[in-house]
Amino acid sequence: MRDAFGGTLVTMAMAAREAMRQASAALLTSDSTLAQQVTVRDAEIDVLSRVLEDRIFDLVVREQPDSEDTRALLSAMQVAAHLERMGDLAVHVARATLRRHPVPAAAPELAEILGLMGGVADGLAGTVVSALADGDVVLAGRLDRDDDVMDELHRRLFTVMLSSDWPLGVEAAIDGALLGRFYERYADNAVDVGRHMVRLLGDPRGL
Amino acid sequence: MRDAFGGTLVTMAMAAREAMRQASAALLTSDSTLAQQVTVRDAEIDVLSRVLEDRIFDLVVREQPDSEDTRALLSAMQVAAHLERMGDLAVHVARATLRRHPVPAAAPELAEILGLMGGVADGLAGTVVSALADGDVVLAGRLDRDDDVMDELHRRLFTVMLSSDWPLGVEAAIDGALLGRFYERYADNAVDVGRHMVRLLGDPRGL
Repeated sequence: MRDAFGGTLVTMAMAAREAMRQASAALLTSDSTLAQQVTVRDAEIDVLSRVLEDRIFDLVVREQPDSEDTRALLSAMQVAAHLERMGDLAVHVARATLRRHPVPAAAPELAEILGLMGGVADGLAGTVVSALADGDVVLAGRLDRDDDVMDELHRRLFTVMLSSDWPLGVEAAIDGALLGRFYERYADNAVDVGRHMVRLLGDPRGL
Repeated sequence: MRDAFGGTLVTMAMAAREAMRQASAALLTSDSTLAQQVTVRDAEIDVLSRVLEDRIFDLVVREQPDSEDTRALLSAMQVAAHLERMGDLAVHVARATLRRHPVPAAAPELAEILGLMGGVADGLAGTVVSALADGDVVLAGRLDRDDDVMDELHRRLFTVMLSSDWPLGVEAAIDGALLGRFYERYADNAVDVGRHMVRLLGDPRGL
């Protein structure tokens, strides 16, 4: 049972990672084709989430799993919700690119920090993939700490926009603030996946 | 079983409603004491959510509920997650007030629209409370439509900030954009509660 769900969760996590990686690339290069792909492919994650939820429901009802298995199943459902949300946030980054195209949604003054935030997001998502694939609680627990880097970048982003010599207008700052928020929430959801894993692993069989 | 969980969900929904109502009042009057209360009281919603989750887990494991009850229990868990998120978003609005105090986080040019968004949020949360209390699917289904008003206000907010005669600086616009986002997400989560209810009510016994 564990392997079947673990497999679907890993697939979802990989898709959520790839989505943000592409959204970040599209953002930094103002690539509307790539951004468009991210918005279209999000449906795949949503379908996986729905399928997982239905299968978990069937299993709980029909197989009456024991205590540890039930806990693992309910945790898998919660993890899936966070992975789906990560996919949604990648779509938000992609949509910012589309909304402003051909003007870059990432103002030149913010591109470096946003690029770093995209890198941290990719790293966190990579850790989520590995932690789920290997049932690695130590790795899952590390997500919380790694998220501190994202918070620090988020603060730097605001410092740049709020400095007295911010050369660009209101629209570029609004884009920057919202993009920063999307990356931060993506990271928060990755951390939440880690927390569910850590909480679960009173159960040594993992997800 | 349904009544016990329905009761907790209604209590959570009422708390999430009250939190945003207070956060909105604090925002419009720059009341840091009230804003502070919202941030402190959010712990109550989090505890309720954790208790609900644990009780649902225990029930699924020990009582081996039938198909309909299991579906209701899993739905209740998902609804609780959205209610908890609504509480978090009220905290975000409250924190914006605290961050800028004694300067109002809602710029005078945006206060009217943000006040309307707060009103719509309160209305949606009130519908969530009633729908959960009465197991009313029709009401739950109406949330999706009512959310359109929030989206329209959100667009108006951006129109004001992006107009060429926006008299205020970048910081006020960033605050406005983030506050708008928090209200929009609060409404989205209310709609999600409604969707879970509608999806569930193949089961006429409701939550």
